[in-house]
Amino acid sequence: MAEIKYEIKENIGVVSESPKSWKKELNIISWNGKEPKYDLRDWSPEHEKMGKGITLTLEELKKLKDILNGMNI
Amino acid sequence: MAEIKYEIKENIGVVSESPKSWKKELNIISWNGKEPKYDLRDWSPEHEKMGKGITLTLEELKKLKDILNGMNI
Repeated sequence: MAEIKYEIKENIGVVSESPKSWKKELNIISWNGKEPKYDLRDWSPEHEKMGKGITLTLEELKKLKDILNGMNI
Repeated sequence: MAEIKYEIKENIGVVSESPKSWKKELNIISWNGKEPKYDLRDWSPEHEKMGKGITLTLEELKKLKDILNGMNI
């Protein structure tokens, strides 16, 4: 099984926490030593396990912010 | 192989578009006939293929909006 190396460069914020203490977090992560990206993903309490998530560029994050600010939420 | 049924209830916005016309979209989607959720995901041009993504509750979307508005982007 291939190995994925990652380094969490910055924890920006926690979007939610599950009853089992998994957290949906927005982080800046470097995957396999590459240029760090924004990353929205579920994590176990000590970041030893990760769940599904997506990476986002700065431009995508800005656009997402605009979309959310245009919603009536 | 198991089948996933989904229905895109609303297209809220497009976060980005790739050179191959895949789009990262924020949608409201019902998965397997369940209660619709917010969903941030890559989609092929005609929505016939989907990429990685995550679902978000309304509360998670609100918190994400707060986090993004607190960033200097």
